Amino acid sequence: MNRPARPPGGGAALPSGGGANALGLIAGGGELPRAVAEAARAAGRSVFIIPLVGSLSGDWVKDFPHEFLSPGEPGRIIKALKAAGAGDVLLAGRVDRPKFSEMKLDAKGMMLLPKAVAAAKKGDDALLRFIVGICEEEGLRAVSVAEAAPSLVADEGAVGAVTPDHGHMADIEQAFRIVHALGTLDVGQAAVVCEGLALAVEAAEGTDAMLARVGSLRETLRGKAGEHRGVLVKALKPTQDAKTDMPVVGVETVKNAAAAHLAGIALEAGAALILDKGAVAAEADRLGLFVIGVKP
Amino acid sequence: MNRPARPPGGGAALPSGGGANALGLIAGGGELPRAVAEAARAAGRSVFIIPLVGSLSGDWVKDFPHEFLSPGEPGRIIKALKAAGAGDVLLAGRVDRPKFSEMKLDAKGMMLLPKAVAAAKKGDDALLRFIVGICEEEGLRAVSVAEAAPSLVADEGAVGAVTPDHGHMADIEQAFRIVHALGTLDVGQAAVVCEGLALAVEAAEGTDAMLARVGSLRETLRGKAGEHRGVLVKALKPTQDAKTDMPVVGVETVKNAAAAHLAGIALEAGAALILDKGAVAAEADRLGLFVIGVKP
Repeated sequence: MNRPARPPGGGAALPSGGGANALGLIAGGGELPRAVAEAARAAGRSVFIIPLVGSLSGDWVKDFPHEFLSPGEPGRIIKALKAAGAGDVLLAGRVDRPKFSEMKLDAKGMMLLPKAVAAAKKGDDALLRFIVGICEEEGLRAVSVAEAAPSLVADEGAVGAVTPDHGHMADIEQAFRIVHALGTLDVGQAAVVCEGLALAVEAAEGTDAMLARVGSLRETLRGKAGEHRGVLVKALKPTQDAKTDMPVVGVETVKNAAAAHLAGIALEAGAALILDKGAVAAEADRLGLFVIGVKP
Repeated sequence: MNRPARPPGGGAALPSGGGANALGLIAGGGELPRAVAEAARAAGRSVFIIPLVGSLSGDWVKDFPHEFLSPGEPGRIIKALKAAGAGDVLLAGRVDRPKFSEMKLDAKGMMLLPKAVAAAKKGDDALLRFIVGICEEEGLRAVSVAEAAPSLVADEGAVGAVTPDHGHMADIEQAFRIVHALGTLDVGQAAVVCEGLALAVEAAEGTDAMLARVGSLRETLRGKAGEHRGVLVKALKPTQDAKTDMPVVGVETVKNAAAAHLAGIALEAGAALILDKGAVAAEADRLGLFVIGVKP
């Protein structure tokens, strides 16, 4: 019953070894899902992907066995994952709060709809936890990005050659306090602090939009070209499950932090992800920023 | 020594009664200082204004006795206030974090500079409290806007004809929780929550910029034309002294909240200001928004 005769997959064939506890990756938007899939494959694991209709960015999934489904089709998602031999499941990437009224629903999705709507109202995290919870009820094991792709996790210490000074460390501590205070209320994962003053706090707009607005603040508040000041901090929310939505930094984040005249970026070591550490280190060095993992 | 023969004032003559405990208003930017000055004068009180060089908006001070000075001239500020017979002092309006290196300094300002720089690094509030503190040390009495212009304070209940429903009240409560959590860290005074989800949190950018970004979020997150959703909440920071910087709402705030597709605005009753209640009520009614004072 769990293994239909019709093979899943949107076109690409299952690779050999796909049946031996493959990683099932439910993929939303952004760069994270691709980085996870490639890191897991590079570590020798089979990966089967469920790109979420309406959320996925890019066409990179064509290099992996996959089946496009909607967040309203949990029955089909579980069926496809089991048929692909995926005992472990991971939801990675940005999932827009769905318009339930327009979403494609399977039978299980219709049954679970009232709970999903209630979860979505509690915040994005609650919705993600809900989707992963359904998979766990069906006997799949929810794994974290740290487990599926450990090479992406931020370690303690600087990634590039630049390191923060004492003033930057004080700003980093204040920003961690802000992010943690907000995190208990399921708001954002990031803040920018410059010489003790909170310049920006992230909510629904995302880190890139937050950095863009820091760059447009009055020059008396922020740094400027040739005088980079202030830090971006990204941390795991205390309420947050590391299995669903760890904070992420990539080359674009470094570029955007530099454009906002910041001195650097600090991440919670062990609880944040760096997409392509080598490229991030090179870009940080080129732009004169620090990127550092910190135990707050 | 405190009363020089040369009368202060940038041009306008002292009104009669100016010596009988006039209100000394140190005026920064925005609409608040003018509203305070006019409300106090309407209540029969003499008002002497110190417009802060570099911060004041508009030329409305020409209707009042006044003397332009810089935040780096506390000695002159106190001298001018005492000469004008102002026993009560109030700092109202937005004061940009000063560039200390470019600021005009008097003797007292030079002596106090290290403390002022340290205060400025702790946040805008700390700097305002510092300036008011200097006046208090010199025997002036610091008064709140509520005391100087009680007609501006938000009362409990709706200002216009529209009132929030149960869903809006839940969003108002969540937004108060967010603002209070941030306020203990001296960050912002405002947040926008829509159906349980925090859409935006204010830091250094100010309320109008925050509302502009809510309007540009994905439509799945926010309200839209014809379907206003979500609330703006402004509240006093727990760390904040009501004498220096109460949250303020005016007609422009109502217009910006409507443009961001919000359903309404909630203020902390007794701890927030409404500039021109009649005009705010009329605009809120015209646009179909509620504006309400709430005891959180």
